[in-house]
Amino acid sequence: MKNAVVLLSGGLDSTTTLAIATDQGYRVHALTFQYGQRHAHEIEAAKRIAKRYEVSQHHVFPISLDRFGGSALTTDDIDVPTLRSDEEIGTGIPVTYVPARNTVFLSIALAWAEVLHAQDIFIGVNALDYSGYPDCRPEFIKAFETTANLATKAGVEHHAPFRIHTPLIDLTKGEIIRRGLSLGVDYGVTITCYAPSEDGRACGQCDACNLRIKGFTENNIADPAPYNT
Amino acid sequence: MKNAVVLLSGGLDSTTTLAIATDQGYRVHALTFQYGQRHAHEIEAAKRIAKRYEVSQHHVFPISLDRFGGSALTTDDIDVPTLRSDEEIGTGIPVTYVPARNTVFLSIALAWAEVLHAQDIFIGVNALDYSGYPDCRPEFIKAFETTANLATKAGVEHHAPFRIHTPLIDLTKGEIIRRGLSLGVDYGVTITCYAPSEDGRACGQCDACNLRIKGFTENNIADPAPYNT
Repeated sequence: MKNAVVLLSGGLDSTTTLAIATDQGYRVHALTFQYGQRHAHEIEAAKRIAKRYEVSQHHVFPISLDRFGGSALTTDDIDVPTLRSDEEIGTGIPVTYVPARNTVFLSIALAWAEVLHAQDIFIGVNALDYSGYPDCRPEFIKAFETTANLATKAGVEHHAPFRIHTPLIDLTKGEIIRRGLSLGVDYGVTITCYAPSEDGRACGQCDACNLRIKGFTENNIADPAPYNT
Repeated sequence: MKNAVVLLSGGLDSTTTLAIATDQGYRVHALTFQYGQRHAHEIEAAKRIAKRYEVSQHHVFPISLDRFGGSALTTDDIDVPTLRSDEEIGTGIPVTYVPARNTVFLSIALAWAEVLHAQDIFIGVNALDYSGYPDCRPEFIKAFETTANLATKAGVEHHAPFRIHTPLIDLTKGEIIRRGLSLGVDYGVTITCYAPSEDGRACGQCDACNLRIKGFTENNIADPAPYNT
Protein backbone atom coordinates (compact mmCIF):
# COMPACT_ATOMS: atom_id res chain seq x y z
CA MET A 1 0.00 0.00 0.00
CA LYS A 2 1.24 3.46 -0.90
CA ASN A 3 0.93 6.38 1.49
CA ALA A 4 -1.01 9.48 0.48
CA VAL A 5 -1.70 12.75 2.22
CA VAL A 6 -5.35 13.78 1.79
CA LEU A 7 -6.53 17.30 2.62
CA LEU A 8 -9.73 16.91 4.61
CA SER A 9 -11.80 19.96 5.52
CA GLY A 10 -14.86 18.03 6.61
CA GLY A 11 -16.84 19.22 3.59
CA LEU A 12 -18.50 17.40 0.72
CA ASP A 13 -15.62 17.70 -1.76
CA SER A 14 -12.77 16.65 0.52
CA THR A 15 -14.77 13.73 1.91
CA THR A 16 -15.48 12.47 -1.61
CA THR A 17 -11.77 12.87 -2.36
CA LEU A 18 -10.88 10.81 0.73
CA ALA A 19 -13.30 8.10 -0.41
CA ILE A 20 -11.67 8.08 -3.87
CA ALA A 21 -8.12 7.84 -2.45
CA THR A 22 -9.22 4.98 -0.20
CA ASP A 23 -10.93 3.24 -3.12
CA GLN A 24 -7.70 3.57 -5.14
CA GLY A 25 -5.89 1.62 -2.43
CA TYR A 26 -3.90 4.37 -0.73
CA ARG A 27 -3.04 4.32 2.96
CA VAL A 28 -4.50 7.70 3.90
CA HIS A 29 -2.87 10.32 6.11
CA ALA A 30 -5.54 12.96 6.57
CA LEU A 31 -4.66 16.61 7.14
CA THR A 32 -7.14 19.15 8.47
CA PHE A 33 -6.30 22.81 9.04
CA GLN A 34 -7.43 24.89 11.96
CA TYR A 35 -6.70 28.15 10.16
CA GLY A 36 -8.83 30.54 12.12
CA GLN A 37 -12.01 29.75 10.20
CA ARG A 38 -15.28 31.09 11.58
CA HIS A 39 -16.51 27.87 13.12
CA ALA A 40 -15.18 24.59 14.52
CA HIS A 41 -17.98 22.43 13.11
CA GLU A 42 -15.97 21.49 10.03
CA ILE A 43 -13.05 20.33 12.18
CA GLU A 44 -15.39 18.13 14.22
CA ALA A 45 -16.84 16.77 10.96
CA ALA A 46 -13.31 16.04 9.68
CA LYS A 47 -12.54 14.10 12.86
CA ARG A 48 -15.69 12.00 12.48
CA ILE A 49 -14.94 11.29 8.83
CA ALA A 50 -11.30 10.38 9.48
CA LYS A 51 -12.44 7.96 12.17
CA ARG A 52 -15.10 6.42 9.97
CA TYR A 53 -12.58 5.82 7.17
CA GLU A 54 -10.04 4.45 9.66
CA VAL A 55 -7.29 6.60 8.19
CA SER A 56 -3.74 5.74 9.14
CA GLN A 57 -3.21 9.15 10.82
CA HIS A 58 -5.15 12.38 11.15
CA HIS A 59 -3.40 15.65 11.92
CA VAL A 60 -5.44 18.70 12.86
CA PHE A 61 -2.81 21.32 12.10
CA PRO A 62 -3.08 24.85 13.52
CA ILE A 63 -2.07 27.66 11.16
CA SER A 64 -3.33 31.06 12.17
CA LEU A 65 -4.12 32.67 8.82
CA ASP A 66 -6.64 34.80 10.70
CA ARG A 67 -3.68 36.83 11.98
CA PHE A 68 -3.54 38.40 8.54
CA GLY A 69 -7.31 38.63 7.98
CA GLY A 70 -8.39 39.63 4.49
CA SER A 71 -11.27 37.13 4.13
CA ALA A 72 -14.86 36.79 5.28
CA LEU A 73 -13.92 33.28 6.42
CA THR A 74 -11.22 34.40 8.85
CA THR A 75 -12.64 37.61 10.30
CA ASP A 76 -16.03 38.64 11.60
CA ASP A 77 -15.46 42.11 10.14
CA ILE A 78 -16.51 40.92 6.67
CA ASP A 79 -19.95 39.34 6.24
CA VAL A 80 -20.43 36.07 4.36
CA PRO A 81 -22.59 36.89 1.32
CA THR A 82 -25.95 35.13 1.06
CA LEU A 83 -28.67 34.44 -1.48
CA ARG A 84 -26.48 35.09 -4.50
CA SER A 85 -27.67 33.73 -7.84
CA ASP A 86 -25.67 31.12 -9.80
CA GLU A 87 -24.64 33.94 -12.13
CA GLU A 88 -23.36 36.06 -9.28
CA ILE A 89 -21.45 33.11 -7.83
CA GLY A 90 -19.88 32.53 -11.24
CA THR A 91 -18.58 36.10 -11.54
CA GLY A 92 -15.39 37.36 -9.90
CA ILE A 93 -13.63 36.27 -6.74
CA PRO A 94 -15.83 36.69 -3.65
CA VAL A 95 -14.92 37.98 -0.18
CA THR A 96 -14.82 34.39 1.10
CA TYR A 97 -11.55 33.93 -0.79
CA VAL A 98 -8.74 33.33 1.75
CA PRO A 99 -5.42 34.75 0.48
CA ALA A 100 -3.03 31.98 -0.60
CA ARG A 101 -4.98 29.36 1.36
CA ASN A 102 -4.43 26.37 -0.92
CA THR A 103 -0.77 27.30 -1.44
CA VAL A 104 -0.27 27.26 2.33
CA PHE A 105 -2.27 24.04 2.75
CA LEU A 106 -0.49 22.19 -0.06
CA SER A 107 2.92 23.35 1.23
CA ILE A 108 2.26 21.86 4.64
CA ALA A 109 0.87 18.70 3.02
CA LEU A 110 4.09 18.52 1.01
CA ALA A 111 6.21 18.79 4.17
CA TRP A 112 4.31 15.88 5.72
CA ALA A 113 4.34 13.85 2.51
CA GLU A 114 8.11 14.15 2.24
CA VAL A 115 8.62 12.95 5.80
CA LEU A 116 6.24 10.01 5.19
CA HIS A 117 8.00 9.12 1.91
CA ALA A 118 4.61 9.60 0.28
CA GLN A 119 4.50 10.81 -3.31
CA ASP A 120 0.78 11.45 -3.56
CA ILE A 121 -1.22 14.38 -2.26
CA PHE A 122 -4.99 14.56 -2.78
CA ILE A 123 -6.96 17.81 -2.74
CA GLY A 124 -10.67 18.16 -3.52
CA VAL A 125 -10.51 21.33 -5.59
CA ASN A 126 -13.11 21.80 -8.26
CA ALA A 127 -13.06 24.25 -11.15
CA LEU A 128 -16.62 23.88 -12.44
CA ASP A 129 -19.22 24.45 -9.71
CA TYR A 130 -16.94 26.58 -7.57
CA SER A 131 -16.63 30.06 -6.15
CA GLY A 132 -14.03 31.43 -8.57
CA TYR A 133 -11.10 30.92 -6.20
CA PRO A 134 -7.89 31.13 -8.26
CA ASP A 135 -6.21 28.38 -6.23
CA CYS A 136 -8.78 25.81 -7.38
CA ARG A 137 -7.78 26.00 -11.05
CA PRO A 138 -5.78 23.31 -12.89
CA GLU A 139 -3.04 25.80 -13.86
CA PHE A 140 -2.41 26.57 -10.20
CA ILE A 141 -2.26 22.87 -9.27
CA LYS A 142 0.17 22.14 -12.11
CA ALA A 143 2.43 25.04 -11.06
CA PHE A 144 2.38 23.88 -7.45
CA GLU A 145 3.32 20.34 -8.48
CA THR A 146 6.29 21.68 -10.44
CA THR A 147 7.34 23.78 -7.44
CA ALA A 148 6.99 20.81 -5.08
CA ASN A 149 9.32 18.71 -7.16
CA LEU A 150 11.95 21.48 -7.25
CA ALA A 151 11.57 22.35 -3.56
CA THR A 152 12.30 19.02 -1.97
CA LYS A 153 15.03 16.50 -1.32
CA ALA A 154 12.75 13.76 -2.65
CA GLY A 155 12.11 15.85 -5.77
CA VAL A 156 15.84 16.21 -6.43
CA GLU A 157 16.87 12.67 -5.55
CA HIS A 158 13.99 10.73 -7.08
CA HIS A 159 13.22 12.94 -10.08
CA ALA A 160 9.83 14.61 -9.66
CA PRO A 161 8.05 12.02 -7.58
CA PHE A 162 5.26 14.23 -6.20
CA ARG A 163 1.82 14.19 -7.74
CA ILE A 164 -1.03 16.46 -6.73
CA HIS A 165 -4.22 14.51 -7.35
CA THR A 166 -7.40 16.49 -8.04
CA PRO A 167 -10.00 13.83 -8.82
CA LEU A 168 -12.90 16.32 -8.69
CA ILE A 169 -11.42 19.14 -10.72
CA ASP A 170 -13.51 18.59 -13.87
CA LEU A 171 -16.74 17.42 -12.22
CA THR A 172 -19.92 19.36 -11.55
CA LYS A 173 -21.20 19.31 -7.98
CA GLY A 174 -23.88 16.85 -9.07
CA GLU A 175 -21.27 14.50 -10.56
CA ILE A 176 -19.15 14.74 -7.39
CA ILE A 177 -22.10 13.67 -5.27
CA ARG A 178 -22.94 10.83 -7.66
CA ARG A 179 -19.35 9.61 -7.47
CA GLY A 180 -19.35 9.82 -3.68
CA LEU A 181 -22.66 8.00 -3.34
CA SER A 182 -21.35 5.20 -5.56
CA LEU A 183 -18.48 4.84 -3.06
CA GLY A 184 -20.84 4.84 -0.09
CA VAL A 185 -20.08 8.32 1.24
CA ASP A 186 -22.48 9.42 4.00
CA TYR A 187 -22.93 13.11 3.22
CA GLY A 188 -24.94 13.53 6.40
CA VAL A 189 -21.72 13.86 8.41
CA THR A 190 -20.10 16.43 6.11
CA ILE A 191 -20.47 20.17 6.52
CA THR A 192 -20.12 22.64 3.68
CA CYS A 193 -21.74 25.82 4.98
CA TYR A 194 -19.61 28.94 5.57
CA ALA A 195 -21.80 30.20 8.41
CA PRO A 196 -23.67 27.40 10.20
CA SER A 197 -25.75 27.91 13.34
CA GLU A 198 -24.22 27.19 16.72
CA ASP A 199 -25.54 23.63 16.68
CA GLY A 200 -23.91 23.01 13.27
CA ARG A 201 -26.92 23.37 10.95
CA ALA A 202 -26.18 24.75 7.49
CA CYS A 203 -27.57 28.21 6.63
CA GLY A 204 -28.77 27.18 3.18
CA GLN A 205 -28.02 30.65 1.84
CA CYS A 206 -24.25 31.11 1.42
CA ASP A 207 -22.46 30.32 -1.85
CA ALA A 208 -21.17 27.00 -0.48
CA CYS A 209 -24.70 25.92 0.51
CA ASN A 210 -26.06 27.10 -2.84
CA LEU A 211 -23.62 24.96 -4.82
CA ARG A 212 -24.20 21.97 -2.56
CA ILE A 213 -27.98 22.19 -2.79
CA LYS A 214 -27.68 22.49 -6.58
CA GLY A 215 -25.65 19.27 -6.61
CA PHE A 216 -28.22 17.30 -4.65
CA THR A 217 -31.05 18.74 -6.76
CA GLU A 218 -29.22 17.56 -9.91
CA ASN A 219 -29.30 14.06 -8.44
CA ASN A 220 -32.97 14.34 -7.42
CA ILE A 221 -32.17 13.39 -3.86
CA ALA A 222 -32.42 15.14 -0.52
CA ASP A 223 -29.27 16.36 1.21
CA PRO A 224 -29.00 14.31 4.41
CA ALA A 225 -27.15 17.12 6.25
CA PRO A 226 -29.15 19.29 8.67
CA TYR A 227 -30.24 22.76 7.53
CA ASN A 228 -31.37 25.68 9.59
CA THR A 229 -34.55 26.18 7.58
CA MET B 1 6.84 53.77 -0.22
CA LYS B 2 6.02 50.26 -1.36
CA ASN B 3 5.31 47.50 1.13
CA ALA B 4 7.45 44.38 1.15
CA VAL B 5 7.35 41.20 3.22
CA VAL B 6 10.86 40.19 4.31
CA LEU B 7 11.57 36.75 5.74
CA LEU B 8 13.75 37.29 8.79
CA SER B 9 15.27 34.32 10.61
CA GLY B 10 17.68 36.35 12.69
CA GLY B 11 20.68 35.00 10.78
CA LEU B 12 23.34 36.68 8.68
CA ASP B 13 21.66 36.20 5.31
CA SER B 14 18.16 37.36 6.21
CA THR B 15 19.49 40.37 8.11
CA THR B 16 21.53 41.42 5.08
CA THR B 17 18.40 40.95 2.95
CA LEU B 18 16.41 43.16 5.31
CA ALA B 19 19.11 45.83 5.06
CA ILE B 20 18.97 45.63 1.25
CA ALA B 21 15.15 45.91 1.15
CA THR B 22 15.32 48.91 3.47
CA ASP B 23 18.07 50.48 1.36
CA GLN B 24 15.88 50.01 -1.74
CA GLY B 25 13.17 52.08 -0.07
CA TYR B 26 10.64 49.42 0.88
CA ARG B 27 8.40 49.68 3.92
CA VAL B 28 9.34 46.38 5.55
CA HIS B 29 6.93 43.87 7.09
CA ALA B 30 9.19 41.29 8.72
CA LEU B 31 8.10 37.67 9.11
CA THR B 32 9.84 35.24 11.45
CA PHE B 33 8.79 31.62 11.86
CA GLN B 34 8.67 29.73 15.10
CA TYR B 35 8.65 26.36 13.37
CA GLY B 36 9.84 24.08 16.12
CA GLN B 37 13.51 24.83 15.57
CA ARG B 38 15.95 23.62 18.22
CA HIS B 39 16.54 26.94 19.90
CA ALA B 40 14.80 30.26 20.47
CA HIS B 41 17.96 32.37 20.15
CA GLU B 42 17.33 33.11 16.49
CA ILE B 43 13.81 34.36 17.24
CA GLU B 44 15.20 36.69 19.89
CA ALA B 45 17.81 37.88 17.39
CA ALA B 46 15.08 38.49 14.80
CA LYS B 47 13.14 40.61 17.29
CA ARG B 48 16.21 42.72 18.07
CA ILE B 49 16.97 43.20 14.37
CA ALA B 50 13.35 44.11 13.49
CA LYS B 51 13.41 46.67 16.27
CA ARG B 52 16.73 48.12 15.21
CA TYR B 53 15.52 48.54 11.61
CA GLU B 54 12.23 50.01 12.83
CA VAL B 55 10.24 47.75 10.52
CA SER B 56 6.61 48.62 9.95
CA GLN B 57 5.41 45.33 11.49
CA HIS B 58 7.04 42.14 12.74
CA HIS B 59 5.09 38.89 12.95
CA VAL B 60 6.56 35.92 14.79
CA PHE B 61 4.41 33.25 13.21
CA PRO B 62 4.06 29.79 14.82
CA ILE B 63 4.02 26.85 12.42
CA SER B 64 4.75 23.52 14.05
CA LEU B 65 6.76 21.73 11.37
CA ASP B 66 8.33 19.75 14.21
CA ARG B 67 5.10 17.74 14.33
CA PHE B 68 6.27 15.98 11.22
CA GLY B 69 9.96 15.76 12.19
CA GLY B 70 12.32 14.58 9.47
CA SER B 71 15.12 17.09 10.13
CA ALA B 72 17.98 17.55 12.58
CA LEU B 73 16.72 21.11 13.06
CA THR B 74 13.26 20.09 14.28
CA THR B 75 13.95 16.99 16.36
CA ASP B 76 16.57 16.07 18.94
CA ASP B 77 16.57 12.52 17.58
CA ILE B 78 18.91 13.52 14.73
CA ASP B 79 22.27 15.10 15.60
CA VAL B 80 23.46 18.27 13.88
CA PRO B 81 26.64 17.29 11.98
CA THR B 82 29.84 19.08 12.96
CA LEU B 83 33.37 19.68 11.67
CA ARG B 84 32.51 18.84 8.06
CA SER B 85 34.95 20.01 5.38
CA ASP B 86 33.92 22.47 2.65
CA GLU B 87 33.86 19.51 0.27
CA GLU B 88 31.53 17.51 2.52
CA ILE B 89 29.22 20.54 2.91
CA GLY B 90 29.14 20.89 -0.86
CA THR B 91 28.01 17.29 -1.44
CA GLY B 92 24.41 16.09 -1.11
CA ILE B 93 21.56 17.35 1.03
CA PRO B 94 22.36 17.15 4.76
CA VAL B 95 20.15 16.04 7.66
CA THR B 96 19.61 19.70 8.59
CA TYR B 97 17.33 20.01 5.54
CA VAL B 98 13.76 20.72 6.73
CA PRO B 99 11.19 19.20 4.34
CA ALA B 100 9.45 21.87 2.25
CA ARG B 101 10.49 24.63 4.66
CA ASN B 102 10.92 27.47 2.19
CA THR B 103 7.74 26.48 0.32
CA VAL B 104 5.80 26.72 3.58
CA PHE B 105 7.52 29.99 4.58
CA LEU B 106 7.00 31.64 1.19
CA SER B 107 3.35 30.53 1.10
CA ILE B 108 2.64 32.21 4.41
CA ALA B 109 4.60 35.28 3.29
CA LEU B 110 2.42 35.31 0.16
CA ALA B 111 -0.77 35.20 2.25
CA TRP B 112 0.41 38.20 4.25
CA ALA B 113 1.66 40.07 1.17
CA GLU B 114 -1.69 39.69 -0.54
CA VAL B 115 -3.56 41.09 2.47
CA LEU B 116 -1.08 44.01 2.66
CA HIS B 117 -1.40 44.70 -1.10
CA ALA B 118 2.36 44.17 -1.23
CA GLN B 119 3.83 42.75 -4.40
CA ASP B 120 7.35 42.14 -3.14
CA ILE B 121 8.65 39.31 -0.99
CA PHE B 122 12.31 39.15 0.02
CA ILE B 123 14.08 35.93 1.02
CA GLY B 124 17.79 35.58 1.78
CA VAL B 125 18.42 32.30 -0.01
CA ASN B 126 21.86 31.71 -1.40
CA ALA B 127 22.91 29.09 -3.93
CA LEU B 128 26.70 29.43 -3.74
CA ASP B 129 28.02 29.03 -0.18
CA TYR B 130 25.05 27.01 1.00
CA SER B 131 24.16 23.61 2.38
CA GLY B 132 22.69 22.08 -0.76
CA TYR B 133 19.08 22.69 0.22
CA PRO B 134 16.93 22.34 -2.93
CA ASP B 135 14.64 25.19 -1.88
CA CYS B 136 17.47 27.71 -2.06
CA ARG B 137 18.00 27.29 -5.81
CA PRO B 138 16.90 29.84 -8.44
CA GLU B 139 14.74 27.28 -10.27
CA PHE B 140 12.69 26.72 -7.11
CA ILE B 141 12.25 30.45 -6.53
CA LYS B 142 11.14 30.98 -10.13
CA ALA B 143 8.61 28.12 -9.88
CA PHE B 144 7.25 29.48 -6.62
CA GLU B 145 6.84 32.94 -8.14
CA THR B 146 4.85 31.46 -11.03
CA THR B 147 2.69 29.53 -8.57
CA ALA B 148 2.12 32.64 -6.42
CA ASN B 149 0.81 34.59 -9.38
CA LEU B 150 -1.61 31.80 -10.33
CA ALA B 151 -2.71 31.15 -6.74
CA THR B 152 -3.98 34.55 -5.76
CA LYS B 153 -6.70 37.06 -6.39
CA ALA B 154 -4.05 39.74 -6.86
CA GLY B 155 -2.27 37.49 -9.35
CA VAL B 156 -5.44 37.06 -11.40
CA GLU B 157 -6.69 40.64 -11.22
CA HIS B 158 -3.41 42.50 -11.59
CA HIS B 159 -1.58 40.12 -13.93
CA ALA B 160 1.37 38.53 -12.10
CA PRO B 161 2.23 41.26 -9.64
CA PHE B 162 4.22 39.16 -7.14
CA ARG B 163 7.98 39.15 -7.24
CA ILE B 164 10.18 36.98 -5.05
CA HIS B 165 13.41 38.93 -4.49
CA THR B 166 16.56 36.95 -3.76
CA PRO B 167 19.31 39.59 -3.62
CA LEU B 168 21.89 37.15 -2.21
CA ILE B 169 21.30 34.20 -4.48
CA ASP B 170 24.46 34.58 -6.58
CA LEU B 171 26.79 35.88 -3.88
CA THR B 172 29.44 34.04 -1.90
CA LYS B 173 29.23 34.29 1.87
CA GLY B 174 32.17 36.72 1.78
CA GLU B 175 30.35 38.94 -0.74
CA ILE B 176 27.16 38.87 1.34
CA ILE B 177 29.05 40.09 4.40
CA ARG B 178 30.80 42.79 2.36
CA ARG B 179 27.45 43.98 1.05
CA GLY B 180 25.95 44.00 4.54
CA LEU B 181 28.88 45.88 6.04
CA SER B 182 28.58 48.53 3.32
CA LEU B 183 24.97 48.98 4.46
CA GLY B 184 25.98 49.19 8.11
CA VAL B 185 24.72 45.78 9.26
CA ASP B 186 25.83 44.87 12.78
CA TYR B 187 26.51 41.15 12.46
CA GLY B 188 27.09 40.95 16.21
CA VAL B 189 23.34 40.70 16.80
CA THR B 190 22.72 37.98 14.20
CA ILE B 191 22.86 34.27 14.95
CA THR B 192 23.62 31.64 12.33
CA CYS B 193 24.55 28.57 14.37
CA TYR B 194 22.34 25.45 14.24
CA ALA B 195 23.22 24.39 17.80
CA PRO B 196 24.27 27.30 20.01
CA SER B 197 24.95 27.00 23.72
CA GLU B 198 22.21 27.90 26.18
CA ASP B 199 23.49 31.46 26.46
CA GLY B 200 23.34 31.85 22.67
CA ARG B 201 27.00 31.42 21.74
CA ALA B 202 27.65 29.82 18.33
CA CYS B 203 29.24 26.34 18.31
CA GLY B 204 31.72 27.20 15.56
CA GLN B 205 31.51 23.63 14.25
CA CYS B 206 28.20 23.11 12.40
CA ASP B 207 27.85 23.69 8.65
CA ALA B 208 26.18 27.06 9.18
CA CYS B 209 29.02 28.25 11.43
CA ASN B 210 31.59 26.89 8.96
CA LEU B 211 30.14 28.87 6.06
CA ARG B 212 29.82 32.01 8.18
CA ILE B 213 33.40 31.81 9.48
CA LYS B 214 34.62 31.28 5.89
CA GLY B 215 32.79 34.46 4.87
CA PHE B 216 34.41 36.58 7.56
CA THR B 217 37.82 35.05 6.82
CA GLU B 218 37.41 36.02 3.14
CA ASN B 219 36.94 39.62 4.31
CA ASN B 220 39.90 39.43 6.72
CA ILE B 221 37.79 40.59 9.63
CA ALA B 222 36.69 39.04 12.89
CA ASP B 223 33.09 37.87 13.30
CA PRO B 224 31.61 40.11 16.01
CA ALA B 225 29.16 37.37 17.14
CA PRO B 226 30.02 35.39 20.26
CA TYR B 227 31.40 31.86 19.84
CA ASN B 228 31.62 29.10 22.36
CA THR B 229 35.33 28.50 21.78
